[in-house]
Amino acid sequence: MRRVCARVRALKILHPLFALTPVRRFTFVAPFLSKRDLQFQLYEVLDTASLPHRPRFAEHSREVYDDVLALAYNVADKYFANHAREADLNEPHVVDGKVQLVPAVQTAVNAFRDAGFFSAHHDEKLGGLQLPWVVLQAVQANFQAANVGSSGYAFLTIGNANLQREFASEAQQAKYMMPLLEGRWFGTMALSEPHAGSGLADITTSATLREDGSYNISGSKMWISGGEHELSENIVHLVLARIKGAPAGVKGISLFIVPRYRVNEDGSTGESNNVVLAGLNHKMGYRGTTNTLLNFGEGGETVGELLGEAGRGLAYMFRMMNEARIGVGMGAVMLGYAGYLASLEYARERKQGRHASNKDPQSGMVAIIDHADVKRLLLRQKSFVEGGLALGLYASALVDEIQTGPEAEKPDNELLLDLLTPIVKSWPSKYSQEALSDAIQVMGGAGYTRDYPVEMYYRDNRLNPIHEGTEGIQGNDLLGRKLGQAGGRGLQVLIAKMQVDLQTSGGLDGVAEIRAALQTAMQECGAAFGKILKRAAELGPDLFLANANSALEALGHTVIGWMWLRQAAAAAKALPNAKGDDSDFYRGKLQAAKFFAVYELPKIKFHTDLLASADPTTHDMQSAWF
Amino acid sequence: MRRVCARVRALKILHPLFALTPVRRFTFVAPFLSKRDLQFQLYEVLDTASLPHRPRFAEHSREVYDDVLALAYNVADKYFANHAREADLNEPHVVDGKVQLVPAVQTAVNAFRDAGFFSAHHDEKLGGLQLPWVVLQAVQANFQAANVGSSGYAFLTIGNANLQREFASEAQQAKYMMPLLEGRWFGTMALSEPHAGSGLADITTSATLREDGSYNISGSKMWISGGEHELSENIVHLVLARIKGAPAGVKGISLFIVPRYRVNEDGSTGESNNVVLAGLNHKMGYRGTTNTLLNFGEGGETVGELLGEAGRGLAYMFRMMNEARIGVGMGAVMLGYAGYLASLEYARERKQGRHASNKDPQSGMVAIIDHADVKRLLLRQKSFVEGGLALGLYASALVDEIQTGPEAEKPDNELLLDLLTPIVKSWPSKYSQEALSDAIQVMGGAGYTRDYPVEMYYRDNRLNPIHEGTEGIQGNDLLGRKLGQAGGRGLQVLIAKMQVDLQTSGGLDGVAEIRAALQTAMQECGAAFGKILKRAAELGPDLFLANANSALEALGHTVIGWMWLRQAAAAAKALPNAKGDDSDFYRGKLQAAKFFAVYELPKIKFHTDLLASADPTTHDMQSAWF
Repeated sequence: MRRVCARVRALKILHPLFALTPVRRFTFVAPFLSKRDLQFQLYEVLDTASLPHRPRFAEHSREVYDDVLALAYNVADKYFANHAREADLNEPHVVDGKVQLVPAVQTAVNAFRDAGFFSAHHDEKLGGLQLPWVVLQAVQANFQAANVGSSGYAFLTIGNANLQREFASEAQQAKYMMPLLEGRWFGTMALSEPHAGSGLADITTSATLREDGSYNISGSKMWISGGEHELSENIVHLVLARIKGAPAGVKGISLFIVPRYRVNEDGSTGESNNVVLAGLNHKMGYRGTTNTLLNFGEGGETVGELLGEAGRGLAYMFRMMNEARIGVGMGAVMLGYAGYLASLEYARERKQGRHASNKDPQSGMVAIIDHADVKRLLLRQKSFVEGGLALGLYASALVDEIQTGPEAEKPDNELLLDLLTPIVKSWPSKYSQEALSDAIQVMGGAGYTRDYPVEMYYRDNRLNPIHEGTEGIQGNDLLGRKLGQAGGRGLQVLIAKMQVDLQTSGGLDGVAEIRAALQTAMQECGAAFGKILKRAAELGPDLFLANANSALEALGHTVIGWMWLRQAAAAAKALPNAKGDDSDFYRGKLQAAKFFAVYELPKIKFHTDLLASADPTTHDMQSAWF
Repeated sequence: MRRVCARVRALKILHPLFALTPVRRFTFVAPFLSKRDLQFQLYEVLDTASLPHRPRFAEHSREVYDDVLALAYNVADKYFANHAREADLNEPHVVDGKVQLVPAVQTAVNAFRDAGFFSAHHDEKLGGLQLPWVVLQAVQANFQAANVGSSGYAFLTIGNANLQREFASEAQQAKYMMPLLEGRWFGTMALSEPHAGSGLADITTSATLREDGSYNISGSKMWISGGEHELSENIVHLVLARIKGAPAGVKGISLFIVPRYRVNEDGSTGESNNVVLAGLNHKMGYRGTTNTLLNFGEGGETVGELLGEAGRGLAYMFRMMNEARIGVGMGAVMLGYAGYLASLEYARERKQGRHASNKDPQSGMVAIIDHADVKRLLLRQKSFVEGGLALGLYASALVDEIQTGPEAEKPDNELLLDLLTPIVKSWPSKYSQEALSDAIQVMGGAGYTRDYPVEMYYRDNRLNPIHEGTEGIQGNDLLGRKLGQAGGRGLQVLIAKMQVDLQTSGGLDGVAEIRAALQTAMQECGAAFGKILKRAAELGPDLFLANANSALEALGHTVIGWMWLRQAAAAAKALPNAKGDDSDFYRGKLQAAKFFAVYELPKIKFHTDLLASADPTTHDMQSAWF
């Protein structure tokens, strides 16, 4: 433990010495994250404090985690939150052929690097702290909430390195991955092409074998986040391409490591690798993250190295997908959460109107948080973002279980994570957007202006239901693949876990509504899934999947209901001995659980009825009839 | 008829002669409006063609209406759609103390003026065409769809003039209203103040009587759209203020006519009236319409004239509210509609993936409109925007019924319009936003970029659930005022009208689902409203209104379901004799009605159950628990 503790302590001392005095662009400043809730989720709902009992985390302690999280919060607050609006208002643009970002982005990613977060979850021998995945996600949550655009560069780099760590050769890891872990080089994922976004099977970028065993890469890649910038010495693209002569479809797709600058023997960067910036995409939000169209092999050869085996490119990508999709879901959660906190602060300060029961115009106005409909909008946000956070961290803890937990439980946990992944990705993407709309609504005209951050979060988060697999793809994944996978074992594992929480929460005060609503939801889902799966062959794939979105909605709400049962149970246990703010905090959890039980879970029935009916209305619609 | 026809013909000849060649900023061009659907709604669902039988419209004919609509479309297409994005990217800003807009706005409002649309619904003696309200709304729909920002200046002016026409003295009308009808001066509504937005009872702007009977106006007004610009010779503000010594609350509020420049005896504009621009609001969308903070009486006296009687200011405003709220609802409908048409065009062109049933990677990709989930997103949009359009035009036709229909039906029609108004305003505001989110989703990454218009519409429309009474206020208005008004007569009238449509559609092909779903929805609403209204006194105003939003949702969906029954019935009647495109059009209407019946109306039950239960969860929540 000493080694890790000492390094964490060194970081704590180091950071206050950074010279920059951050200036916020908003005159209105609300916290972007609830430290109290993060603690509750990690230590009272999840059992993160017990992870140091495992060999990989033996050097850790709760204090280490808390120190790392405090550091993350401080770096996020000082170096990321400070320029979120500035980067939104000054989106990346090209000057003299180079992508220009606001200068604060460089300072921010340097601070992230100096805090060691690029490698924090990696092995000590690679310079990491061996942080558990769940703690890493909690760390990242700070940055996602503070500034989703600037943190994008870091997270893409981390994801790229994770993939290399899993599948690249040792030589490739030394050459391309280590500079990512050190934060000197940054990374991207280059999958989509102008004509192939969701349908990656149809990509046409080609790879031609060279004499030295490397490949010439040629083609165009679209929607590449972090595809070009001057933040790092080099950019390592992971590129999907077809080796000349490979079969059509997914089996002909391979993965290549393609650096922006070629890499010399000594690891230094050399000449241009002819990856040419063909254009920047101008987005509604998420503007801080450059998004590019890149041409490979334009004006000269672009040389890449095959990563792993030929023809397994998409398989490698999909092996990393669970973790990438947890990342998108958590990003969505944190945008929603930041919006919730901003609207909450506003609602407590802003006075307007009186209670309906008060007809005296001479009486003072009340804070708008005292109006029931504003409380509804805030409770709705709270139930969505805290439910989403619980799920994102639960799924992250499951990654730790799979990697470091009991071997015997690994297959079940893998199936459970597979089943949950489409929900972890899509549910917060959708419901944080609803929460952010509610945040704007709470703030009225103010929320619609750029004087407050919520309109920006609303624009930022609208990306999340699109990238890393659209909502439609997540629905098809859930119904068409995950629910039936391994004979439905994933759903059985999920139900068994829910049953445990239902049993252990039996006698607790204040959890009756959420327990009852969850049980109803489980029954409705179980019956509907059973019906539709049984009819799959008879319906054929197209009609079977026509209402897949309702499977996603129904199981998504059920899973969030479960997350609220777990939170409510933890709160109910703690409440009798809690005082002051803590007591309020737990009462809020219980009320939000009740809200989700009464105002959200009953909505499932519509979806389970629709799914079970295999209604053909959308399937039967014809293009010409629109 | 000759006079009107001749004028309309003159306009048709005039407009092609305008010299400007419009250049669209989007490379992607989709129609912003379905002329076919507008025709269907006016002549096949509504009986607009019969209006010329009434004395006020005796000079009209269907041909006149069609010509006016064709003119509206052409002016909207050439002079409004051309700069919607340009105005979005270059929002109003102050240069040398003056608000600068993109030059195309001036050209646009001039074209609108020259087409005679500022006065089109007014009496012939005022220079108008005496157009029915429903035709005026259909005219305006073109401009709302083409460019909501630039058309805002015109619509605010029209609304201002309508209020003057109703309540101002003849002298005031001659002095202040006629220049608005001529499109020489523009108008605003100046209600909100920095500390009083939704709660107008608390405004503090003061009015002090001067010796000549006019008033000195002093105070600040916030969120004033069109509050300052150089588009017109003068700006006429309608300002809510308190005469010194007036009582607190709404009874102390009067309405004043306050021009930007004082008006000379001869009607020409004179010196500054000391209405000072204190700042521009920077909005997420709707950027083309300047939104201002104005100080009255700064650096000199601001002189205003009392409009109507003292103490009746809010009453006058609310008398105009039904029409203003129809306008907001229609604006929302048309933004949603434009987004739907854009995503529809994209979905037909963009190829991606294959049917789930096709495993051959060598086969060609299909247009994304062939995927069931994309059809779901498009059907959802279609059902929302065409349902919303039907409602907006129905409510507009009701205005005509009240103004020119049988006197005996007037009281019932007024109650019905009162009841429908919160729905007409809020339902499209909310559901067009959902439709626009779906439009973005259909288009994927492309929809998220500024290369396509849908992200702009999405930002534009997010204002609509906020202004002219928030969604919360509409819910309270519906449950707390309209449902119980006149012993519930409004709801009885509504149900009776629905019953007529249910009866007359009985034997038609293809309307079974929507008929059944509407009947269920009516029963659920009726039962829930009965229960909650009966318990109003027992619950007290605060708890009674706590779930008012669910009343709005339940009756809103039911009313739109009714609109779909009316459309489905018209389509079912026409289909047997229709050919080609017309046949497709009617089949699309029937399928969209089925969609709304199966995919939307069942969602009501959740809301009626919640409302009937008088659940206190939001009411009981405490500020400290958040």
